[in-house]
Amino acid sequence: MLIAGLMTGTSLDGIDVAVCDVDAEGVTLQSFATHPYTEHTLDLVSRALRGEASTVELCDLPFALSADYAAAIPKDVALDAIGIHGQTIWHNPPHSTWQAASGSALATLTGVPVVSDFRAADVAVGGQGAPLVPIFDWLTLHSTEIDRVALNIGGMANITLLPRNAQLETLRAFDTGPGNILIDSAVMQTFGKRYDEGGSIASAGRPLVAMLEHVKGLPFFALEPPKSTGRELFNDAFVTELHRRFLHPSGPSEDFVTTLTELVAWSIADHIHRMQANTEELVCSGGGVHNEYLMQRIAFHLPDVRVVTSDTFGIPADAKEAMCFAYLAWLTLHGIPGNVPTVTGASRRVVLGSISDPRISSVNAPKVSSVSASTLRPRA
Amino acid sequence: MLIAGLMTGTSLDGIDVAVCDVDAEGVTLQSFATHPYTEHTLDLVSRALRGEASTVELCDLPFALSADYAAAIPKDVALDAIGIHGQTIWHNPPHSTWQAASGSALATLTGVPVVSDFRAADVAVGGQGAPLVPIFDWLTLHSTEIDRVALNIGGMANITLLPRNAQLETLRAFDTGPGNILIDSAVMQTFGKRYDEGGSIASAGRPLVAMLEHVKGLPFFALEPPKSTGRELFNDAFVTELHRRFLHPSGPSEDFVTTLTELVAWSIADHIHRMQANTEELVCSGGGVHNEYLMQRIAFHLPDVRVVTSDTFGIPADAKEAMCFAYLAWLTLHGIPGNVPTVTGASRRVVLGSISDPRISSVNAPKVSSVSASTLRPRA
Repeated sequence: MLIAGLMTGTSLDGIDVAVCDVDAEGVTLQSFATHPYTEHTLDLVSRALRGEASTVELCDLPFALSADYAAAIPKDVALDAIGIHGQTIWHNPPHSTWQAASGSALATLTGVPVVSDFRAADVAVGGQGAPLVPIFDWLTLHSTEIDRVALNIGGMANITLLPRNAQLETLRAFDTGPGNILIDSAVMQTFGKRYDEGGSIASAGRPLVAMLEHVKGLPFFALEPPKSTGRELFNDAFVTELHRRFLHPSGPSEDFVTTLTELVAWSIADHIHRMQANTEELVCSGGGVHNEYLMQRIAFHLPDVRVVTSDTFGIPADAKEAMCFAYLAWLTLHGIPGNVPTVTGASRRVVLGSISDPRISSVNAPKVSSVSASTLRPRA
Repeated sequence: MLIAGLMTGTSLDGIDVAVCDVDAEGVTLQSFATHPYTEHTLDLVSRALRGEASTVELCDLPFALSADYAAAIPKDVALDAIGIHGQTIWHNPPHSTWQAASGSALATLTGVPVVSDFRAADVAVGGQGAPLVPIFDWLTLHSTEIDRVALNIGGMANITLLPRNAQLETLRAFDTGPGNILIDSAVMQTFGKRYDEGGSIASAGRPLVAMLEHVKGLPFFALEPPKSTGRELFNDAFVTELHRRFLHPSGPSEDFVTTLTELVAWSIADHIHRMQANTEELVCSGGGVHNEYLMQRIAFHLPDVRVVTSDTFGIPADAKEAMCFAYLAWLTLHGIPGNVPTVTGASRRVVLGSISDPRISSVNAPKVSSVSASTLRPRA
């Protein structure tokens, strides 16, 4: 099946579209592109994420997103399906999770069946609803000979442990903490830039030891997996408070960015040390791989580990999550569970998501206009 | 197919569950019951409707609703599917509409395929996303010999015109304005009661002519169909303002309720006069049929029309909308469009809703644990 996977992450840098050939044997990427949001949609999403959106704006949001998604779908390929993550507005496991998007609107606009809302079913059986990428990591990266870890650095950072002969039934994966989100926020607040290109700002500073030790002490980092986190904890207000508390008014702002970058590197490495000490290879993906300084710091903390990007395995680092949602859509369309209970904490494996199929039946389907309402036939 | 249709309307008086046998020939009601919301859910819904819910509460809302829906589903019948309307939080046609509920969570909790989010697809093709009941009215009430109108009085009131030999392709239906919503609000504000039982309050008062003429002048009433309305226009604030402006401090509060009841009767009758003057029979459903005074006033304004309830046709007046969503679910599961473009203003007929199917494939389905990821097989 030719399936487009669409990912829109917490960093709001665009709509990732990965068109993939998917079958029972695996996933092959056909094309990948990132499309911008319209300004209207970006404004709605930003307001919703800040809790400032009105009821009518929240009503409009999934339709605006789906219109943008429809515009991002390549027109020159005959897709069998589309899998969309949607835009996470809030994540409150194990009670609820909110990925805005209208699968039904997108299906109607494109004429292609859409699978959406992948996290709700896992939450409904007591899971965190996240992470969902591990089944894809397992499919594409598990090995009989190498102890691997798959790492994705998006807004948050998460790892999937893939010791040799890893089994899906016993897989472990979890968020290690913030990915780019705090770095991006700090760079915006102090330098007015959207992100630290190549890590050049962080590489020019020195870590603030007191701040680093303080943040390392957050309970999240010491928690045993499974665990997940999000903007509910790591957000602009968190960065503002750290800045106020730890950066001396005359201190260089670079130091602040360096410290947050070091936090990310430390938290990833620390979890790998704790959870799979014999790791031989770390396979990295997500926007964070473009932060060279961050990647150097991760490698520094893991001297015995070979650090590579997922490109090595035919999975462009920026495309992995979008490819994953193409694969998850394929699973759902085949009635195959996509969650991994050992990862999410769910009580059982469940089929994820909802299917909006816009195709009107033509063969053997009863036509409404020919229905005779015998059971409730009018009396006269 | 045995399908449960679930309706939760704007009046928040409970979860209507209609278990129906549905096939290409028609719909037969097997059982009907109304279940209360839990207090937690009712609180979340009420706060969302007032625009006071926090982001985390809005995140929780669809999961709380689906947990209540799951509890309302009869356990002693083997359902093939469930069709849910969800809880309308906002309706902003032709841009968007918002029916809160998690189809995926409900399907996971019940093990039964769920069809949900019926209005989005129609909105996506330029429709109002409402009303959706007309296709069911047509199926169950159209006749070769009688010029009928189907009326539903819920929070809002809507009619479906069914002249003899009505065709689905040219069907007309629309909201006539408020149903119970203003009466309920007025009775709460002035008498502290949830509704005017049997219309006893309204029957004790006299209409306030100036107020009635003022409200009749609202542009909505004069609009040509297709049209729909909701809490965005007719709400508590609207009632409060009318009360302040038109009821003399020493005037009896009954008069205020009488006037709003008269408005409902007038607006229904006026639209029938204007749109289908030769109507012979009016088939009424919805909670409003229990307001005897209102029904008398409707009959008064339509002296040449036989006024009956839908019970006459095997459709209990309180069960019609829930039965309709069982039927709409059946249409969706068969790939048959459920919207009527002449009614909603949509540019074309579309398949409505999203399907969450929790059933894990057992026959011929590839098992994930046996998938060999040849395409992206790890290199070592």
